[in-house]
Amino acid sequence: MSYQLYYWTGLQGRGEFVRLCLEDVAAPYVDVARVEGDDAIMPFLAGEHTGALPFAPPFLKTGRLVIAQVANILHYLGPRHGLVPEGEAAALHAHQLELTITDFVAEVHDTHHPVSTEQYYEDQRDEAKRRSKDFREHRIPKFLAYFEKAVDRGGSRFPLRQHSYVDLSLFQVMAGLEYAFPKAMAKQKAPLLRDLAKRVADRPNIAAYLASDRRLPFNTNGIFRYYPELDS
Amino acid sequence: MSYQLYYWTGLQGRGEFVRLCLEDVAAPYVDVARVEGDDAIMPFLAGEHTGALPFAPPFLKTGRLVIAQVANILHYLGPRHGLVPEGEAAALHAHQLELTITDFVAEVHDTHHPVSTEQYYEDQRDEAKRRSKDFREHRIPKFLAYFEKAVDRGGSRFPLRQHSYVDLSLFQVMAGLEYAFPKAMAKQKAPLLRDLAKRVADRPNIAAYLASDRRLPFNTNGIFRYYPELDS
Repeated sequence: MSYQLYYWTGLQGRGEFVRLCLEDVAAPYVDVARVEGDDAIMPFLAGEHTGALPFAPPFLKTGRLVIAQVANILHYLGPRHGLVPEGEAAALHAHQLELTITDFVAEVHDTHHPVSTEQYYEDQRDEAKRRSKDFREHRIPKFLAYFEKAVDRGGSRFPLRQHSYVDLSLFQVMAGLEYAFPKAMAKQKAPLLRDLAKRVADRPNIAAYLASDRRLPFNTNGIFRYYPELDS
Repeated sequence: MSYQLYYWTGLQGRGEFVRLCLEDVAAPYVDVARVEGDDAIMPFLAGEHTGALPFAPPFLKTGRLVIAQVANILHYLGPRHGLVPEGEAAALHAHQLELTITDFVAEVHDTHHPVSTEQYYEDQRDEAKRRSKDFREHRIPKFLAYFEKAVDRGGSRFPLRQHSYVDLSLFQVMAGLEYAFPKAMAKQKAPLLRDLAKRVADRPNIAAYLASDRRLPFNTNGIFRYYPELDS
């Protein structure tokens, strides 16, 4: 049975965290809006279906389930595809890390939209500069130190002692930060995280995905955006 | 066996979502920092324990597990205390709603701290006014409409068709918004959410908790803060 992933076209966005899981385990899936257009998303946001109502994409349809929220989707996929170690303690641990990644990603978004998602970046650039300065000076170091420590506690290769969906998300975060904040990231050490990200990129299915046209480039429609004035 | 809840003293904060669950089901728990002081939290943030490393409080210690992230804690407590309907679909649905509440709460926090958690509110008041305007005009209506619809889809009394931890969190969100944004909230309809919040407040264990000195008043150290200039 094929999964149906719903996410806006034209950007990696939050959908990418789900794509990386599906690609890593070679799960059959359709990226529905890329086939049918963004309009395919709307009936679900309007609630014209049974089951859980998504607040926003991404959401995953599988059988009769509609599952929204990235961390929830990964929590669902993990045990089904060997993307989390067995047992409740590991599932909770992985999910906790993923939820902290979720928080970090929301902060990344707010570096370019600190006032309103209803307004253009250009209309909140001054506030964005102020927030990005704080993000570069305090939040990147704090979150990277936390995840570095998490990898160290897992034995220095994986936060969960073996490959998991958390690795894939950490790869995406590191790649996004390198794109959006190259100068700030050049000042960060995080050797275990950098090594982890490299090993994820080298996984055969991930390497094939990253080389495919399914992997969109980062751009300034996504969560991770490169605006030079926010990185200096 | 008693749960050990770790959260900063002096405010409701994110710990309150966990307290409401524990109080509702009369689970034995110790609010550790309120007994031993905030210093009791530090060894866990420093990683001087085995198990998952919290990024921040609240976290719950139960046996050998240390569980952080509010939604993760509620996802753990739910099935153990009848605070979520049985079955995987319901667990995913409840968790999805809770994660959307988590997003909403993060946005509430950013109304008074849109630039930096390292700086005082007074040093980011102008940005806070701008962000709060957007929050009042766009985000409160959008999130309340979503949760109103979620309750409607559940049969108009509960989003999950029966009492769950999501009800307790929605109560806390509505109470917090009424405190922080009384003028903006006076413009909101949300009759199902208001009715749900009232029914939660009337639950015997919750009513007893709210009347106790364990329930701290909302204040301007918490997530929901009343600054008149952000509500006009």
